[in-house]
Amino acid sequence: MTQPTGAVPHEFSTVAIVGVGLIGGSIALAAKQRRTALKVIGVGRNAARLAEASRRGIIDDAASDLASAARLADLIIFCTPVDRIAVGVREAAAVCRPGTLITDAGSTKGEICRDLAVGLPQGVEFVGAHPLAGSEQQGFEHASASLFENRVCVVTPQPANSSKSVARIAAFWTALGSTVTEMTPAAHDRALAETSHLPHVAAAALAATLSAENRVLAATGFRDTTRIASGDPELWTAILLGNRECVQSSLAAFDAALDRFRQAIEENDAEGLKNLLKAAKIGRDAIGSS
Amino acid sequence: MTQPTGAVPHEFSTVAIVGVGLIGGSIALAAKQRRTALKVIGVGRNAARLAEASRRGIIDDAASDLASAARLADLIIFCTPVDRIAVGVREAAAVCRPGTLITDAGSTKGEICRDLAVGLPQGVEFVGAHPLAGSEQQGFEHASASLFENRVCVVTPQPANSSKSVARIAAFWTALGSTVTEMTPAAHDRALAETSHLPHVAAAALAATLSAENRVLAATGFRDTTRIASGDPELWTAILLGNRECVQSSLAAFDAALDRFRQAIEENDAEGLKNLLKAAKIGRDAIGSS
Repeated sequence: MTQPTGAVPHEFSTVAIVGVGLIGGSIALAAKQRRTALKVIGVGRNAARLAEASRRGIIDDAASDLASAARLADLIIFCTPVDRIAVGVREAAAVCRPGTLITDAGSTKGEICRDLAVGLPQGVEFVGAHPLAGSEQQGFEHASASLFENRVCVVTPQPANSSKSVARIAAFWTALGSTVTEMTPAAHDRALAETSHLPHVAAAALAATLSAENRVLAATGFRDTTRIASGDPELWTAILLGNRECVQSSLAAFDAALDRFRQAIEENDAEGLKNLLKAAKIGRDAIGSS
Repeated sequence: MTQPTGAVPHEFSTVAIVGVGLIGGSIALAAKQRRTALKVIGVGRNAARLAEASRRGIIDDAASDLASAARLADLIIFCTPVDRIAVGVREAAAVCRPGTLITDAGSTKGEICRDLAVGLPQGVEFVGAHPLAGSEQQGFEHASASLFENRVCVVTPQPANSSKSVARIAAFWTALGSTVTEMTPAAHDRALAETSHLPHVAAAALAATLSAENRVLAATGFRDTTRIASGDPELWTAILLGNRECVQSSLAAFDAALDRFRQAIEENDAEGLKNLLKAAKIGRDAIGSS
């Protein structure tokens, strides 16, 4: 295999991945394939699942105990639900070696980064990150070494972070094939409320509106529009409540947009409705089809 | 090629397809490949486009004049925008031979079928139909002989229709690979408001909510959810206004569903939100992933 451009061979010697699901499993596969990690330890609460991930070669080693893995790692990546990231980071930071870098792949950043901005042991840094990849599918069975290729990864540094640590996390994601964008945690949460959290609520509300007898009439349009409503309810509850204020703002903006459509339909205003649909099409076409 | 089960070889000798876009072009390809039509005449207002469809072998012959094609056909299928179907059917019915069947592929059925329930010349029947297939793509360049395979086609007979004519239209769609469901035009419009027209408005409103600077952060979830917002604004204006009352009812139901999510988020009600997301996931999972 040729080495991908930008990859630093074995930049990290031992990477601990906490939460080996779709995202954690994909990071493990990608980091090894792209030689950014020499060894990957998977950490999780379900020993049987971890053993299966080992058997499939997704992780090199399994640990049901976070502390023991944290002690061995020079990079620890939290891929757990967003409401369990901060507490896990503190637990790992308390026992890991000085110089260990800790990061995450959580869909919200404000609360987590605020929580971890102070109080970590000297020499241990947490740099937040969010790879914009994934799907409604769950579990390492769907993991793929190419999941992050040509995707955006948002890195959310804070004042306490050293530029070297931020650069190492950015380089890690670049090595996995992603384009890295730096944002503040707050700016990330505002943007993602619009691009990800609001669409999730809209898709779920649409899926909830479909009556059982009309399921047979749901064609590709409905399927596309509601696909993400199949996502894990527990994960999404944590995401939506972890970014409550921004989600509420985005819902209000969505309501206002819906109202404009509703009004044009009520008033039988063909010209107005066509212009709204045109503007929406221009916006949608601008982000491409893939 | 083996003949697909249920296909009646050359059930129709000459099929005129009015409007040779994605749907019309796909019907032409499928009808010839499956030997349900001996010859397909494409009818349209743009001579250059029709000539190109001929050159590509999608249609056998081109006619810019509806009347001349209607006189030759034993089946005429209108694939024009829904607000132009009824007037076209009347024009074709006035000149075609007795025994000619006329149908359509329009996304709304109530207005069209009501309009055409009476007043057609003796011996000429219109049977409404709506194949639940298509995409946000337009033009015969995207046409495919397999577009209707394993899709539902709704046929909407009216009291004036003979059972033989309804059966012939149903057999036509069965021969193209679709599963045929009979519904009244009103029931069709109520159901499709929920499964297709509402999702279109929701997708367009979501696309309209996305700010230009956040486009780079729109990942697969946003793309899936808004894909249909790339559909043709003119076509969709006619569909939404042609099914105004049902679309308004569906928008009201969607609003009520959105409100339940909004309230759970506002009240920080994790249990309530999780239950809403679970119910939505069950509904979405029930329609499958393809």
